Amino acid sequence: MSFSTVDVITAKRDGRRLTDEQIDWVLAAYTRGDVADEQMSALAMAILLNGMDAAEIARWTQAMIDSGETLSFGDIGRPLVDKHSTGGVGDKITLPLAPLVAACGAAVPQLSGRGLGHTGGTLDKLESIPGWRASLTLDEIAAQLAAVGAVVCATTPTLAPADRKLYALRDVTGTVESIPLIASSIMSKKIAEGTGGLVLDVKVGSGAFMKTLDRARELARTMVDIGGAHGLATTALVTDMSVPLGRAAGNALEVAESVEVLRGGGPADVVALTVALAREMLALAGITDVDPAQVLASGAAYPVWEAMIAAQGGDPSAALPVASHVETVAADRSGTFTPDALAVGVAAWRLGAGRARKEDAVQAGAGVLLLVDPGAEVGAGTPLLELHTDTPAAVAGARAALDGGLRITDGPAERPELLLDTIRP
Amino acid sequence: MSFSTVDVITAKRDGRRLTDEQIDWVLAAYTRGDVADEQMSALAMAILLNGMDAAEIARWTQAMIDSGETLSFGDIGRPLVDKHSTGGVGDKITLPLAPLVAACGAAVPQLSGRGLGHTGGTLDKLESIPGWRASLTLDEIAAQLAAVGAVVCATTPTLAPADRKLYALRDVTGTVESIPLIASSIMSKKIAEGTGGLVLDVKVGSGAFMKTLDRARELARTMVDIGGAHGLATTALVTDMSVPLGRAAGNALEVAESVEVLRGGGPADVVALTVALAREMLALAGITDVDPAQVLASGAAYPVWEAMIAAQGGDPSAALPVASHVETVAADRSGTFTPDALAVGVAAWRLGAGRARKEDAVQAGAGVLLLVDPGAEVGAGTPLLELHTDTPAAVAGARAALDGGLRITDGPAERPELLLDTIRP
Repeated sequence: MSFSTVDVITAKRDGRRLTDEQIDWVLAAYTRGDVADEQMSALAMAILLNGMDAAEIARWTQAMIDSGETLSFGDIGRPLVDKHSTGGVGDKITLPLAPLVAACGAAVPQLSGRGLGHTGGTLDKLESIPGWRASLTLDEIAAQLAAVGAVVCATTPTLAPADRKLYALRDVTGTVESIPLIASSIMSKKIAEGTGGLVLDVKVGSGAFMKTLDRARELARTMVDIGGAHGLATTALVTDMSVPLGRAAGNALEVAESVEVLRGGGPADVVALTVALAREMLALAGITDVDPAQVLASGAAYPVWEAMIAAQGGDPSAALPVASHVETVAADRSGTFTPDALAVGVAAWRLGAGRARKEDAVQAGAGVLLLVDPGAEVGAGTPLLELHTDTPAAVAGARAALDGGLRITDGPAERPELLLDTIRP
Repeated sequence: MSFSTVDVITAKRDGRRLTDEQIDWVLAAYTRGDVADEQMSALAMAILLNGMDAAEIARWTQAMIDSGETLSFGDIGRPLVDKHSTGGVGDKITLPLAPLVAACGAAVPQLSGRGLGHTGGTLDKLESIPGWRASLTLDEIAAQLAAVGAVVCATTPTLAPADRKLYALRDVTGTVESIPLIASSIMSKKIAEGTGGLVLDVKVGSGAFMKTLDRARELARTMVDIGGAHGLATTALVTDMSVPLGRAAGNALEVAESVEVLRGGGPADVVALTVALAREMLALAGITDVDPAQVLASGAAYPVWEAMIAAQGGDPSAALPVASHVETVAADRSGTFTPDALAVGVAAWRLGAGRARKEDAVQAGAGVLLLVDPGAEVGAGTPLLELHTDTPAAVAGARAALDGGLRITDGPAERPELLLDTIRP
């Protein structure tokens, strides 16, 4: 069946539902180039402003899946369960989480992306480990899942190519911030990966994409419903991203913190969120006789981390890169310290930890390292954080980003609860 | 000053005003190619759905004017006054109107376009006259205005090139139907032409772009306000397009009817609308001592027509092309005949009078010729209209378009008043 592209655009523009046939046609035609970028961007804007209902979103997701191949790892001897975070500052949770869940008996195929803007990418973080490589073949992924139980690697361009093309378009046309488009983008890739269960970490706050709890809940509910419509058991946690997660924001800095957590230490918030997500993943995998909190505290996940890194060519015992230039920022008054996630994220980005354009390189050692926990009491002159970079000229921009973001107030900490909501089918 | 394109798009997407600087920048950058088509179409959709206020529309119009050159014909010894119609079925009014207004002492520089879809283009109509050419240089236009007082010719690509580029984009992205974008498109070209006064004929009804009186009034008011913001005296008539104007819809067929009107005859509705528009144009030109109704009825405008056609290479006395195939459609019952404008327009288009794509040719002789006036009483079997075409295979499609559109009802005619409203500054 064929449609006029303008008819599809005007239907959504005028607030009507898109039919299943219109959705299937427009995404297939866009993938093969018969619908032009300027037509799809107009449709994306109409979707952003007029919305899609649950059935349209489910069909849109299916059409994105159908634009490419779907993976199947066959029987690898463990239940497969995956996790996705909408991204935040200092969000290195995948690094301790995947080995932890594997140590508890499930298998985690984590196909990841690189960072853009102030939130870091999981692959960028792992690439700070000497020798580690992100690209694996499907056979290598399957073999590593069976042997180690955890893989974090680059996603393949054959999964949901419509999403890849559409995401690049949305990025330059002001059409990113649509819950139907965000939800279908994330879920199409996760469903195409062939996981057996999925836990979502939907972040809310200044450092996250979703700025309000209502929007974060709506995104979480939309994704859980898409999972349901496609037979994928999905649970979403809505978690705070108004302050950075842990003390480290930056590639090697976050790897080092993750290793601390895997050895049974590390910041309390990173541990708590890792355990909370692991608990949900294990529940979806049907593993109920293991307490991930105990496993993490015991250090039993660390050998899985070592195996996971080594399987991809990395040396888990090698020294991590360090930045050539470090400066300290001190408190200018006394009170309760509540750093703003966005301020810290932008500072780390400007120091070299992130990229402004897809083709930029990142610095392995750059970033921000908090010296005190968010919520702690500090005195005037207390060192608050370190700025790490190989390009000292970037420090002024980082300091400017932090201006006003290193809140020190009288009274108790302003940080909300870490775990704000849980959305289940 | 420079802006991020995405910031401009998201401002309008989120319902905010665009600043003067944003408008100037985005249209200049689009004209030179620094804002991509997919970005401008997303912005156009956001404008369509979230609107622009009067000040934004005025600035948008100015930025479109500033994208190209503006004309000045110098002192040609007569006041300049122009007319624009939003287009309808059988709308040949420019053909008798320009010579009439010139015969009354003003000068009419009518830079026109070609037709697309079911409404015919003025240039297509005149090109059915043997020898007539649409393209004139600016010096030729000025000389003809001084000598004859009326010019109907092709517009130049140097006027408002941003509009030309944007219109082509809107056409394929479902973003045509925005009153701010329609109004600024029309007014930018008319203001750039350097006319001294402007009368608009905003059509409403099935055969028009505006389907409701409210929308037509809003478009008319928006254009009159743009004129006011740019110091161009502008009056708009809102007129009915629920039935065809006159009896002829098709290129040479409409020229023949226009000549009848110029000779003092012709259908009453064509005469009435020509006179009404002429009266407003003459008022704007400051000519109050001539009655255009008397001039038209006297045939005094016909010699101006002859001179206007001859000045552009046409032979006003030459026989007009006729279609090789003519079929008659008769009434299937008795009653009051009220043909639907859209049905007649689509039939004429399918017979070959119009084009589906810009690069298509049109047939000079094709179209629909009513044999009775709309609103007349007919008996069963009365011949209602003729279908004219050089391609008899097209007749079936034309008859299908007319199916249900040749209303014959009991009781009085359903046609609304021709002149529905007048919008003044």
